[in-house]
Amino acid sequence: DIVVELIGGTRDAFDIVAAALRAHKPVVTGNKALLAERGIELFSLSREHDTPIHFEAAVAGGIPIIKTVQESFIGNRIHSMTGIINGTSNYILERMTTAGLDFQAALSEAQQLGYAEADPALDVNGWDAAHKAILLATLAYGFPIDPTRVHVAGIEQVRPIDIEFATRLGYVVKLLAVIREQPDGAVELRLQPSFIAKSHILASVHGVFNAVAVHGDAAGESLFYGRGAGQDPTASSVVADLVEAARSLRLPEGHRGFLPYRENGRLLPVEDTETAYYVRFDVTDRPGVIAEIARVLAEAGIGISGTHSPVNPESPDADFVDMVFLLHTCRFGRLQETLSEIEKLDCVNSSPVVFRIEKL
Amino acid sequence: DIVVELIGGTRDAFDIVAAALRAHKPVVTGNKALLAERGIELFSLSREHDTPIHFEAAVAGGIPIIKTVQESFIGNRIHSMTGIINGTSNYILERMTTAGLDFQAALSEAQQLGYAEADPALDVNGWDAAHKAILLATLAYGFPIDPTRVHVAGIEQVRPIDIEFATRLGYVVKLLAVIREQPDGAVELRLQPSFIAKSHILASVHGVFNAVAVHGDAAGESLFYGRGAGQDPTASSVVADLVEAARSLRLPEGHRGFLPYRENGRLLPVEDTETAYYVRFDVTDRPGVIAEIARVLAEAGIGISGTHSPVNPESPDADFVDMVFLLHTCRFGRLQETLSEIEKLDCVNSSPVVFRIEKL
Repeated sequence: DIVVELIGGTRDAFDIVAAALRAHKPVVTGNKALLAERGIELFSLSREHDTPIHFEAAVAGGIPIIKTVQESFIGNRIHSMTGIINGTSNYILERMTTAGLDFQAALSEAQQLGYAEADPALDVNGWDAAHKAILLATLAYGFPIDPTRVHVAGIEQVRPIDIEFATRLGYVVKLLAVIREQPDGAVELRLQPSFIAKSHILASVHGVFNAVAVHGDAAGESLFYGRGAGQDPTASSVVADLVEAARSLRLPEGHRGFLPYRENGRLLPVEDTETAYYVRFDVTDRPGVIAEIARVLAEAGIGISGTHSPVNPESPDADFVDMVFLLHTCRFGRLQETLSEIEKLDCVNSSPVVFRIEKL
Repeated sequence: DIVVELIGGTRDAFDIVAAALRAHKPVVTGNKALLAERGIELFSLSREHDTPIHFEAAVAGGIPIIKTVQESFIGNRIHSMTGIINGTSNYILERMTTAGLDFQAALSEAQQLGYAEADPALDVNGWDAAHKAILLATLAYGFPIDPTRVHVAGIEQVRPIDIEFATRLGYVVKLLAVIREQPDGAVELRLQPSFIAKSHILASVHGVFNAVAVHGDAAGESLFYGRGAGQDPTASSVVADLVEAARSLRLPEGHRGFLPYRENGRLLPVEDTETAYYVRFDVTDRPGVIAEIARVLAEAGIGISGTHSPVNPESPDADFVDMVFLLHTCRFGRLQETLSEIEKLDCVNSSPVVFRIEKL
């Protein structure tokens, strides 16, 4: 007797799963929001009642990444996991890149093709991927992660001009999950549109596919690639979980999950994360704008590796223009402070848009 | 009490593993030759004595491909597995491509870097990879495979001219394992240097890395990528197996392995496999050579998609030249017959070299 919980939502799902565990019925679920938000409670119940939760379908349906992290990499200290774990976003970004669509047009296309939900909010705002990243990080590092403390940005902010600029520089724009242990043990965990080198293997992850690159101290670099969602890949994971659940019913075995195993685990504050950046400003088109912005950056000690002001072909004489800066690596906290200084300049008209440039 | 068998060779290893199983000691091994040649006997002993053999380290050390095929893809009918599963060959081919080395120079470099054994025979003749492919095919299709019936060609035949020509046409040369179920259930299994499109994700597998692309009916396309060998990745697999072995000692569980589960399994004869081909001839440099060869191909109904005779820069006036033909898809048996006709021509000086052009 196994309970399969594949509905969406969190509140009802919690009650269903909790009731099953209390009745000693193993659970198979693909509900990532449920596990990311209330997994600690559920896996405590699981242990208390000695009844397993199987959740391979919760992350990247066609890729056995949960089993890999929990079992195959058990002899590894995991240095990092970086991945593309939302197929809808990846499809939209790719269509913006290859077909020159804007965000809305690419989203509509994804919806027509059935890749995006009627309500695509969780896909495009990054939270679907963030839930999955929280599951992976909890398994790899063994401490509870508060979803409200995870830095999440979606792809709604990505505009054709960003894609164009990335392409010209040899980058591809991807919605990237970055999970990385720092030398002091703090765990960096963030999810946002990122520039990655076109030659990196993650740049070859097309359409609705997912991929997770894992770096373990023993195994070295590995990559797991496959379909992220859809009926069949999810069914594939569910069937594997059912077989495992049935096997453990027959011969009970220590179950797994993300019970905390680390006492002093902590999340790296997003202010302390460091990468290079792509920043797009909306500025008044008059002489001296670059100089003013560059002065504030220089005072903050943030290096500029490039700047560019593309002409908008639709309104070449507009008063407002986009101005792009590529910035050297610095603490994100310092960048934020500096950008709020820059926002006070008369020539800057709205909050800048920031994407990460990831060295993978 | 677990027996870890990591030595090479087959005969002694068989006795060690068999003795352990008879004594009910679980075995952890990475000996792919042993399992490819005598796995059926050993897994019979394993079942008879209810004692498991764990062998994740036998194929692609850093990639949990055995667990994936045995457990995660248990709900899938596996259509195909194609992969790069010998890091030494892959390193040599890559150095021939990027540094313009010839085979011997690239091999020496691999040996100096410790990537190739002092006796690199099994790496470069394709048999190390063939043993691994036999293990994967046996797990996926459940019938005993006779190693002597597997079509294996190594990379010793690959020359700079082949690499150059492949590059010019947008291909990359890889030592590729192809395992594919035919509509009638016969299993295609072969291992040889192959041209694959530069844009395919397998073309991005560099250096000593391994990758296996799996196509299942439910999961769709997936790819598993990581370090293939070396002390640490192998240790990673061995540790995961030890943990599993220890767990099953504590709580005995139905073990796995490749006991035949299919009655009528059969290997597809290599003559019946079909791909496009790259064929290199050594011909006498005189007018009419292309016409003579083309006539024989035409009589056999084999289409030519391109032909080229590169000038040898070291001896532009040589009497003998290389002549390359790209041929459309046909049965390999027909190609073989036709090539033996062509070999009889006066202008052809030695047996042609044939590589596959794989549509992945």
